[in-house]
Amino acid sequence: MVTQARAFTTRALIVKGAAIAFERYGYDGASLNDVVEAAGTTKGALYFHFKTKEALAREVIVEQERQSHAAVEAIEESGSAALEQIVMVCHEMARQILEDPIVRAGVRITLELSITDGPHHPYETWIAGCARLAARAIDEGDLREDVDAGALAHFIVSAFAGVQLFSQFETRRTDLSRRVDEMLQVLLTGLVPPRRRARLDKILAAHQAPQTQT
Amino acid sequence: MVTQARAFTTRALIVKGAAIAFERYGYDGASLNDVVEAAGTTKGALYFHFKTKEALAREVIVEQERQSHAAVEAIEESGSAALEQIVMVCHEMARQILEDPIVRAGVRITLELSITDGPHHPYETWIAGCARLAARAIDEGDLREDVDAGALAHFIVSAFAGVQLFSQFETRRTDLSRRVDEMLQVLLTGLVPPRRRARLDKILAAHQAPQTQT
Repeated sequence: MVTQARAFTTRALIVKGAAIAFERYGYDGASLNDVVEAAGTTKGALYFHFKTKEALAREVIVEQERQSHAAVEAIEESGSAALEQIVMVCHEMARQILEDPIVRAGVRITLELSITDGPHHPYETWIAGCARLAARAIDEGDLREDVDAGALAHFIVSAFAGVQLFSQFETRRTDLSRRVDEMLQVLLTGLVPPRRRARLDKILAAHQAPQTQT
Repeated sequence: MVTQARAFTTRALIVKGAAIAFERYGYDGASLNDVVEAAGTTKGALYFHFKTKEALAREVIVEQERQSHAAVEAIEESGSAALEQIVMVCHEMARQILEDPIVRAGVRITLELSITDGPHHPYETWIAGCARLAARAIDEGDLREDVDAGALAHFIVSAFAGVQLFSQFETRRTDLSRRVDEMLQVLLTGLVPPRRRARLDKILAAHQAPQTQT
């Protein structure tokens, strides 16, 4: 049992090391030596758990998806109004990218692999979650009735991906939280019925993330 | 003079060949042989015009910027209402990406180089143009007075970048025109004062691009 627990920890260290190496050098650029170095483990341990760089990349992507799924589930179980949960989803996407090297690596290598290897979508779980929330927010009267929930969800998550890319270009993501606030403000103000605007402002203010602004 | 004209044509062929190679293999992956092959020229001709791969990449990016600049200028001189020009800008960004390998390569290599080499922004001209148009659209009464023109312009162009990325993932960009229409619909409907909504619908309908939809 002790050995199993240790193997489990080593495996997690290796996956995190792979994420750090993929984020830094990209999928093609990262070598197994980079992974071993970032993980602080041995090449023997690496080969025991993963036979190829591809297997490592797959694991990083699976782990990223697991985290999206857990976050969407937790937000949907929070009991808040659906409109507020949409705001929470956007800030949570930003938080994961800012704080978790596995998420950053997942976004980068999915992008790289999709360019050469056909589509795999890193944001699928977020889009499906947002679509459920948008449909509920319409039922709850917090989004206009003529909003297309599926189209809105797809657009919110696409737009977030662009916003995070620009934030990376422009400020190495130091302004990401502020840009997410800006996006929610620009986008949601017009989609919320006038009588619910004050409520939206309160929700946006409650979820602003001053600690990560610069 | 004939020689100069031929050199000019060869140079343009090489830049286009470089764009095709960069789009296909990425900046790191593309070799000068790939460029020569895509350009249908000789290695001697390549070296006559460009000493390094970096010089080629720079030229692709400069050419992409030249095209953004020309497009924004032409749209601003069109005499249409500013709101309509914002719609035109979004469709023109899509058209350039769909039709021009230099634009696609510029977007790809800027992304790649920015990850490793510090920020260079491929969409700066579009953002500045949109900001001028948004300010004018507010003056013309076609956007709500409480809209922040700079924030909106930044968001529109970031969102477009995300939309085009998702379209590339999901459909190899075959649904890009439809997704741009969807984005404009979701985003602008709430930003246009109610009395101008019918006018917005007319503008959106006039600029839908059925020929590139599948």
